[in-house]
Amino acid sequence: MTSYESFSKLHQGPAPLLLGNVWDVQSAQVFEAAGYAAVGTSSLAVAKAWGYDDGEHIGFDHLLRLAQRLTAVVRIPVTVDIEGGYSRDLKTITTHIQKLHDAGVAGINLEDSVGGKLLPINDFRKLLTAVADYVAQHHIRMFPNIRTDSYLFALPDALDNTSLRIPTYEEAGASGIFVPGITNPEDIRTVTEATPLPVNVMYVPGLPDYATLTDLGVRRISMGPFLFNRVYAEMNTLAKALQQNKNLASVLS
Amino acid sequence: MTSYESFSKLHQGPAPLLLGNVWDVQSAQVFEAAGYAAVGTSSLAVAKAWGYDDGEHIGFDHLLRLAQRLTAVVRIPVTVDIEGGYSRDLKTITTHIQKLHDAGVAGINLEDSVGGKLLPINDFRKLLTAVADYVAQHHIRMFPNIRTDSYLFALPDALDNTSLRIPTYEEAGASGIFVPGITNPEDIRTVTEATPLPVNVMYVPGLPDYATLTDLGVRRISMGPFLFNRVYAEMNTLAKALQQNKNLASVLS
Repeated sequence: MTSYESFSKLHQGPAPLLLGNVWDVQSAQVFEAAGYAAVGTSSLAVAKAWGYDDGEHIGFDHLLRLAQRLTAVVRIPVTVDIEGGYSRDLKTITTHIQKLHDAGVAGINLEDSVGGKLLPINDFRKLLTAVADYVAQHHIRMFPNIRTDSYLFALPDALDNTSLRIPTYEEAGASGIFVPGITNPEDIRTVTEATPLPVNVMYVPGLPDYATLTDLGVRRISMGPFLFNRVYAEMNTLAKALQQNKNLASVLS
Repeated sequence: MTSYESFSKLHQGPAPLLLGNVWDVQSAQVFEAAGYAAVGTSSLAVAKAWGYDDGEHIGFDHLLRLAQRLTAVVRIPVTVDIEGGYSRDLKTITTHIQKLHDAGVAGINLEDSVGGKLLPINDFRKLLTAVADYVAQHHIRMFPNIRTDSYLFALPDALDNTSLRIPTYEEAGASGIFVPGITNPEDIRTVTEATPLPVNVMYVPGLPDYATLTDLGVRRISMGPFLFNRVYAEMNTLAKALQQNKNLASVLS
């Protein structure tokens, strides 16, 4: 079974896939050792690890290098968050996807917003269709998890807008639908019932618990940057304690 | 005052400089926010963050990119551990130092071993002299902290060997002497009394406490990879708990 096939199967349930969201190779190794079935980059966590804001500032070559190291080092499937594609040019975006595929990546996240603004549905459909055509022509097997950002931006018509976009994305080749920011159980139910594709939600405060999400038909749960934030908050506690008490052995051993 | 001047001054006491050893930009930002006066890369921690063993496998370009991001993002001085120079060619090593200087780096660590073996003293002296000649000719102000590895390798004649090498390194242009692995208080005293240069020790289990190190004349204390190890051990605890209890809110918020 290829990495893509394993990864795809992890979305078939019965329990939702809990994705370990990474920012470097060591964090992926920790997730793998802890028994996680797959890891994925969080674009925000990767950006912050390198002192950038989110939004493709880190550059595609850096992201590709990280993807190559991840697939070289861990044996579980790796999916890569490529935000809006790290280009506004369709051909460049498909080249990026080819390179990630060649690196052994099992899936990508691609989102329908750029610079904090939703793309018009037809513009994003064109991008998805271009990606679908490219991967079909080049016999690339990958899991495109398509992210729709109405809830992330807390739009008043988030449910309507999401419901409108999902069938379009489904038809244009999505393997999964990612709705970060959604927390309302009825909305989650509406979304999972609206599509045969596996639905991915992201932890944010107020998200229902794992058992409820399972009941609501969610197939994948991401951590976004939240574990990253926890880990560096722990580092902050350790670094401050050491700076104040100078007790090397208690903090460093 | 330039970053080099600030950094150099931090070695003049009275209290030893506690260097925050980083593996990425976020870790440097955490140290800066916690009030650390300077940060330095730990080559082992940087390597592990990217899934490599220590020993220059990560490549100089990657290390340079990290150095550039560090100096761009934090305002405190940054020193970079360049192991054996990321080349065995003297001219290439001086080119690396020039690039780090151009990136705004205040100091470097350069070590007298390659591949786990001490270099003959004369070979390393030649390298230090080449570096000193280069920086003098190019008016580069940097703090070369010269690491000597007899204690790190637990050599039976570590004190004799270290005492023999220090005056040579001093004469060949070292700004500081780094003796990782040394823990015996009498040995530390012998070393600090053997040179007017600031002496740097690294935390390892058994190292005397901060107050004792201050009394022994130590001027700089490094963490090596030990805080990195602690932080990823914390991540391991969090990731395992989440994998087992699936309690998203308790682990991620």
